[in-house]
Amino acid sequence: MSSSSAAPAAKPPMREALVAAAFRLFVERGYEQTTVDDIVALAGVGRRSFFRYFPSKEDVVFPDHERCLADMTAFLAVSDEEHEPVRRVCDAARLVLRMYAENPAFSVQRYRLTRQVPGLRAYELSVVWRYERALAEYLRGRFSGRPDGTLRADVIAAAVVAAHNNGLRSWLRSDGEGDAGAAVDHALGFVQRAFGRAVEDVASVGVGPVPAGGPAERPDDVVVLACHRDAPLWRVVQELETALGRT
Amino acid sequence: MSSSSAAPAAKPPMREALVAAAFRLFVERGYEQTTVDDIVALAGVGRRSFFRYFPSKEDVVFPDHERCLADMTAFLAVSDEEHEPVRRVCDAARLVLRMYAENPAFSVQRYRLTRQVPGLRAYELSVVWRYERALAEYLRGRFSGRPDGTLRADVIAAAVVAAHNNGLRSWLRSDGEGDAGAAVDHALGFVQRAFGRAVEDVASVGVGPVPAGGPAERPDDVVVLACHRDAPLWRVVQELETALGRT
Repeated sequence: MSSSSAAPAAKPPMREALVAAAFRLFVERGYEQTTVDDIVALAGVGRRSFFRYFPSKEDVVFPDHERCLADMTAFLAVSDEEHEPVRRVCDAARLVLRMYAENPAFSVQRYRLTRQVPGLRAYELSVVWRYERALAEYLRGRFSGRPDGTLRADVIAAAVVAAHNNGLRSWLRSDGEGDAGAAVDHALGFVQRAFGRAVEDVASVGVGPVPAGGPAERPDDVVVLACHRDAPLWRVVQELETALGRT
Repeated sequence: MSSSSAAPAAKPPMREALVAAAFRLFVERGYEQTTVDDIVALAGVGRRSFFRYFPSKEDVVFPDHERCLADMTAFLAVSDEEHEPVRRVCDAARLVLRMYAENPAFSVQRYRLTRQVPGLRAYELSVVWRYERALAEYLRGRFSGRPDGTLRADVIAAAVVAAHNNGLRSWLRSDGEGDAGAAVDHALGFVQRAFGRAVEDVASVGVGPVPAGGPAERPDDVVVLACHRDAPLWRVVQELETALGRT
């Protein structure tokens, strides 16, 4: 029953008007106390217009996730063998961050709302799960044929999502004041160090006999590490990090 | 209106009878087509008895998660500094596996049901999230004061849950035929190698000058690795894995 058909390009503004009206009411009255009728009344449109854009009241809280999921899927679909897989899924996760960072005030408001309303929390978990599955599916393809390919894919996808969300939440808790990109880059860097491969640098490492006269550190900055064959790998890596000054 | 008060110790059987009746109907008619009234009629009890045990129809699908979450929380609460944190959360995750493995036929049936009913999928995601938070909270405590303590905690908790679920799903897809424990142990082993520390083995590694006459491999199984200071850590680790025969 909307009579706005005369206005060209009216659809995107109507969608935004519905989101704005919804959030104004959610903040003023609470999410549970706000009905779709309240939202359409404030936005000055009919119920059918609301449901043209949003299947349910919950969906108006997360208006951009479907687009972002589509963007992520498209981004991963155009990957090729040149892309280091872990870096690629980290970059895909950054698309989600970009969506949040586009509108900090809205994102912070929604974060608070989601923490208060269990139903929205559940909705968000299902969205996060879909992002995680998109990353895992991509990694499963890249790791297919490798031992533990699906395991590796699932674990890395979960780790990337957890790191992204850790960085995102720290930014949201700062009321969107900090540098969202830096927080998420830092968090994703942790996952890349744990699982990532940097294909371009393969040639710079050698394993084998110690160079003649080889001390612990040679002038050309070669680090020599001696370890027992049965030493736990984590410990060797920790020593390596120390030796390489990466701690 | 239940008249079963004369039967001593009747509660656990009634709870089990409700679960059995519910699953029989879910399988025969479908989850959505089964009402709480149908379930109580088949079980021969009143509605109030149902709601004494289960807040909603969804809860009867996952009758043991609350107990398992409580077990996990208690298990983590009695941890001490001696417990290597990553191993400890892997052991906590094994409590969930134990619950599934206690009743393979029921677990397989539920797995199929959960995949068919979106509402149950959402419920399950919220349960998984609660397990993940329990693990993350424990790790946050253990890593408090460390750089990136909360990040490390969140990422490891997510990785443990993803690995556990990967192993669990592969067992459920085998219709509970395979060895659930072996599948999950293998999956968790991957996470422990990526993140874990094995405190008991610290003494067996040394970094420093190569032992006199040090070749690549000494008779007492010392591995010597030479790498450039600017080599990417992942590559060094990969070479190490190869050198140590851990690939």
